[in-house]
Amino acid sequence: MTRQVILLGAGGHAKVVLDVLQLLNQTVVGVTDPQLHQQGIAEWRGLPVLGDDQAVTCYQPDQIFLANGLGSLPGQTLRQTIYKQFKNLGYSFITLVHPSALIGTGVTFAEGVQIMAGSILQPDTYIGENTLINTGAQLDHDCSIGKHCHLAPGVILCGNVTMEDTCHLGPASCVTQGCHLGQGSILGAGSTLLKNLPAGGKLLAAKPQSPVTRSSL
Amino acid sequence: MTRQVILLGAGGHAKVVLDVLQLLNQTVVGVTDPQLHQQGIAEWRGLPVLGDDQAVTCYQPDQIFLANGLGSLPGQTLRQTIYKQFKNLGYSFITLVHPSALIGTGVTFAEGVQIMAGSILQPDTYIGENTLINTGAQLDHDCSIGKHCHLAPGVILCGNVTMEDTCHLGPASCVTQGCHLGQGSILGAGSTLLKNLPAGGKLLAAKPQSPVTRSSL
Amino acid sequence: MTRQVILLGAGGHAKVVLDVLQLLNQTVVGVTDPQLHQQGIAEWRGLPVLGDDQAVTCYQPDQIFLANGLGSLPGQTLRQTIYKQFKNLGYSFITLVHPSALIGTGVTFAEGVQIMAGSILQPDTYIGENTLINTGAQLDHDCSIGKHCHLAPGVILCGNVTMEDTCHLGPASCVTQGCHLGQGSILGAGSTLLKNLPAGGKLLAAKPQSPVTRSSL
Repeated sequence: MTRQVILLGAGGHAKVVLDVLQLLNQTVVGVTDPQLHQQGIAEWRGLPVLGDDQAVTCYQPDQIFLANGLGSLPGQTLRQTIYKQFKNLGYSFITLVHPSALIGTGVTFAEGVQIMAGSILQPDTYIGENTLINTGAQLDHDCSIGKHCHLAPGVILCGNVTMEDTCHLGPASCVTQGCHLGQGSILGAGSTLLKNLPAGGKLLAAKPQSPVTRSSL
Repeated sequence: MTRQVILLGAGGHAKVVLDVLQLLNQTVVGVTDPQLHQQGIAEWRGLPVLGDDQAVTCYQPDQIFLANGLGSLPGQTLRQTIYKQFKNLGYSFITLVHPSALIGTGVTFAEGVQIMAGSILQPDTYIGENTLINTGAQLDHDCSIGKHCHLAPGVILCGNVTMEDTCHLGPASCVTQGCHLGQGSILGAGSTLLKNLPAGGKLLAAKPQSPVTRSSL
Repeated sequence: MTRQVILLGAGGHAKVVLDVLQLLNQTVVGVTDPQLHQQGIAEWRGLPVLGDDQAVTCYQPDQIFLANGLGSLPGQTLRQTIYKQFKNLGYSFITLVHPSALIGTGVTFAEGVQIMAGSILQPDTYIGENTLINTGAQLDHDCSIGKHCHLAPGVILCGNVTMEDTCHLGPASCVTQGCHLGQGSILGAGSTLLKNLPAGGKLLAAKPQSPVTRSSL
């Protein structure tokens, strides 16, 4: 991989992605960001701001790799949209695995996968295109994850968990052994899935006890 | 430790155990598995299938180590049964600590303990015979864990937690400072224990909010 | 940093702190502990017991560093009190980062911060004075944590979480993207914060399902 990299986006997730790129000794030629571009800001974390996303097209598709710097929250689709848009134009996305991640035998990644710091993937797990395995998420053996999913920080998957495309697993959520998540399903933060979740399903953790505030004491 | 190792079982957990064995440069002579044997399958992940578990007895007890490749789910006892059966025949089980595990000063392990990737054991913690500390489980200082327990992926124990034999702590469960768990007690996935749990006790997390499914929208 | 270190306290957290000091090749001249001193115990984990906390004053403030060995539980203030007391006398506290911790670009620490084994701090996160980031806690990008806070083992913070001084986040608690915690607020073990928590606020996880015990079966 001697192609240089362009980072798409300059928000919080992009900072984390840039850290991984630099740890992997990738050469990043610049960052694209509509807001910074509009504000006339020329530099971000030592990188030139190349313009808005259109700036990518100054480079030939086989000349560079793209890194998806857009984060993911439930209901947002920009991370997926931008990926598809540039794939349709012939560009390729770099697959990133933080050096601290622990990757078992037989684990496989599709294009554009991002595996963040402290993640653990046990043997024979598969991660689909453009899926983001965020900080410290753990996937046990034989999991299969679709495209454009987001496993937020601290997600715990037991063995043999499978999920379709565009699922969103909130931070510190947990899926027990062998469960299946249908397309586009969502786990709320801190929730625990004990059985299958159908396509478009959403599981929210139990409501906490009413918060006690100083004024109510 | 120059004895060769036989791996008992060829399921999901066995894959994870094999990864640890290979990272520790152990020589594995083969795997035993009743199902593969019955199906006439001769090789598994590059290892010869030696037969069903009886194949172990072709080796003298002081000639080899066994590695317990059976996983653990609540209500299942096979992992414990097979351990005791071969101990009664005079065999020994290898204690496995994944190289990534962080082990504090004064931590001690009994025979056959398995410490998986990303686990953290803080000072003066003790782990009893045949207990499995699964992926990314964390035990803080001065914990004492009995025999044949399973701490599933992502379990968090605070300091001074103690538990008797054959406890099962589900994935992403948590035990607060100083709690005691009686023999055979169970924590459900995602549950949090705030006080002692008696022998045979079972704590289940709060029920989640009714899942919203596409059909109910 | 060639100053020698005195460890304040000889309980469970002090063991964990001592491990970090030794991994960082710090020279620890001894430990202070009122109880051990009163009992006439002269040595603790190979270190001389120098006396109760007053023994610190035998050293000039610019001659040594202090390490805060006191742990933190909700409602306890000793860890904070002892820090302020010795700061008022002109002493300095050592900032400790366990070698296994993953620290992103632009992360900054104030004096006396303690980052324990397996913690992850993503880019541009800030940790205030005397705050304890305990075993395996994860803070994503752009978090800002006040003084004298405790993030217990296994805490998960998403990006852009901010908190004021003296907050206590229980083990395995989780804070979602962008939430703010007011001064002195508390998250119970295993709880998940989805919106801001006012100063002095307290959030407790949902009550678990009634535990099933052997006697009730």
